[in-house]
Amino acid sequence: MKPNLKIRKPLKIISTGKYVPEHKVSSEELEQQFGIEPGWTFRSNGIMSRHRATEEETGASMGANALKDALNRANMKFEDLDLLIEASASFDYPIPHNACLIPIEFGLLDAGVPCWDVDSTCLGFVTALDMVSYLLDGSRYSKIAIVNSELTFPNLNPEDPKTVTLFGDAATAVIVSLPEEGEHSGIITADLETYSGGAHFTRIKAGGNVHHNKSRPSDADLSFEMKGKEVMRMAMMKVGPFAKKLLDPIGVTMADIHCIIPHQASKRALDFAQKAFNWTNEQMVSIIADYGNCISASIPLALHEAIESGKLKRGEDCLLFGTAAGLSVGGLYFIY
Amino acid sequence: MKPNLKIRKPLKIISTGKYVPEHKVSSEELEQQFGIEPGWTFRSNGIMSRHRATEEETGASMGANALKDALNRANMKFEDLDLLIEASASFDYPIPHNACLIPIEFGLLDAGVPCWDVDSTCLGFVTALDMVSYLLDGSRYSKIAIVNSELTFPNLNPEDPKTVTLFGDAATAVIVSLPEEGEHSGIITADLETYSGGAHFTRIKAGGNVHHNKSRPSDADLSFEMKGKEVMRMAMMKVGPFAKKLLDPIGVTMADIHCIIPHQASKRALDFAQKAFNWTNEQMVSIIADYGNCISASIPLALHEAIESGKLKRGEDCLLFGTAAGLSVGGLYFIY
Repeated sequence: MKPNLKIRKPLKIISTGKYVPEHKVSSEELEQQFGIEPGWTFRSNGIMSRHRATEEETGASMGANALKDALNRANMKFEDLDLLIEASASFDYPIPHNACLIPIEFGLLDAGVPCWDVDSTCLGFVTALDMVSYLLDGSRYSKIAIVNSELTFPNLNPEDPKTVTLFGDAATAVIVSLPEEGEHSGIITADLETYSGGAHFTRIKAGGNVHHNKSRPSDADLSFEMKGKEVMRMAMMKVGPFAKKLLDPIGVTMADIHCIIPHQASKRALDFAQKAFNWTNEQMVSIIADYGNCISASIPLALHEAIESGKLKRGEDCLLFGTAAGLSVGGLYFIY
Repeated sequence: MKPNLKIRKPLKIISTGKYVPEHKVSSEELEQQFGIEPGWTFRSNGIMSRHRATEEETGASMGANALKDALNRANMKFEDLDLLIEASASFDYPIPHNACLIPIEFGLLDAGVPCWDVDSTCLGFVTALDMVSYLLDGSRYSKIAIVNSELTFPNLNPEDPKTVTLFGDAATAVIVSLPEEGEHSGIITADLETYSGGAHFTRIKAGGNVHHNKSRPSDADLSFEMKGKEVMRMAMMKVGPFAKKLLDPIGVTMADIHCIIPHQASKRALDFAQKAFNWTNEQMVSIIADYGNCISASIPLALHEAIESGKLKRGEDCLLFGTAAGLSVGGLYFIY
């Protein structure tokens, strides 16, 4: 880390929590189940296994389990929070939004804690973290939880090997506050850019108002579809200039950064980014092999693992970085 | 307005814009179409007509039309914005989120303006306005548009007279910035509380991960359903104490407030609130008869109409107030 980096907004990650369903599905199993050539999955996207929710699990139950983990680690209870943000791309119900369903899982029907959602697909956590730093700094709230919970499997197309092997189910929760006196934690810089020319490269075509469920769309149209090459091409064009615009004004280069957490889109995307930015294996966190792409939960899950493994320690700097359906490019550089 | 009210966060509404589809459906037409007793609709929910989108219109096209209106009134173009927030409850696609689809309607595929979504159902605009005041104050962004676009009809159950007559399609856009030197505009106070015991009182049961589309749910389960009595009972219990908690600390009573914009849930809900809080007809804005309940677009649409009609002028105070699926109660008191 460069010395004397100026913190734009103070923010302390008090604790992180995770929940992954017990059931783990190997790529071999998937290949057998869906008639995919053995070994194709790992070669194609670098994923060995991913977790899969049971039929009884919901986005809310998974999110609540992750939040319980984070609250336990912070020695807090739900009612100590004064804001709950859900920042997932998948959802339990079209209405209401995700966040208000979480307190029910705690048996809290009358908590009054404000609950609302933020959505920027895979960058939901990064967007929410940036945003809440302003709410904390302005003394609007003092203890905020950001929950990301992604239940991916129902939204996949079993006839599309590329996507059905790519995603995994996971939930995370990150609790933040202002740092205590003398603690040096906070966001140094963050930004997001949206290039709508890529909005239809990654989408679920039907199930919203444009192709409504009542018109009985096909299972394929109700599944996530991805123009992988177009996404890669656009991402390759955008991430370089974006990173420069993000880091140049603070005088930081990628080589200065201790810990780099890219969105875990696929092994190929991680490899491309690592090569483009010259990230070392020591800098970069990769959890794709064991979890798959967990949409908005990928970045906070990798953050949780980096903290758990000791790769990211208090006072050290970390860059969250990635692309999202939109197509958006985002980054957030902070001191943990 | 009480003299010497302290502004918590400076914020100026530069302009508001609206779009409603040309086609207007009267309650008589609906009653005939769905076999409802003539006159029942107005007696039940006070709605005479509502606008209805064509099959070609989308949430994004409607939202973009409203945003064009707001940009024109502010003499701005899209690229002058540095953040676009969509805060609607209905959506065009399950993925990606709504906001990233708006630039496409402007023909802007490469704008780079950050786009993301906020969702607290009917209170989406209020939540977003409160939140962006902190982003403006912290100099994160300087020109922000909040778009609310609700395409309601596809999500209604023709066999449920209560709901099929209640909702209307509309979109709004509100552009905000910091006030200029010497201008006295801003948020005095705002709050939101979520009581999850009411989360299932207003919902669309199927279409998310809990009852997935691929399980071929019935049209009824893919439609908005409402336990009207339970919502009213809970709202009646919560809004009084909430209003007290919101206004007491700033020494303001309802009688002090110049302009009051409640969520346009139904005429019955407006009547209840008016009676409970002793709002005068001069204070309260009601547009329910001509537009129906437009979900998250209701409050900003009523705000737009209040400004257009001269009911709310620069320097005057205004309270946005309402409940939302969640069940949430929210309020925001500001100087226009």
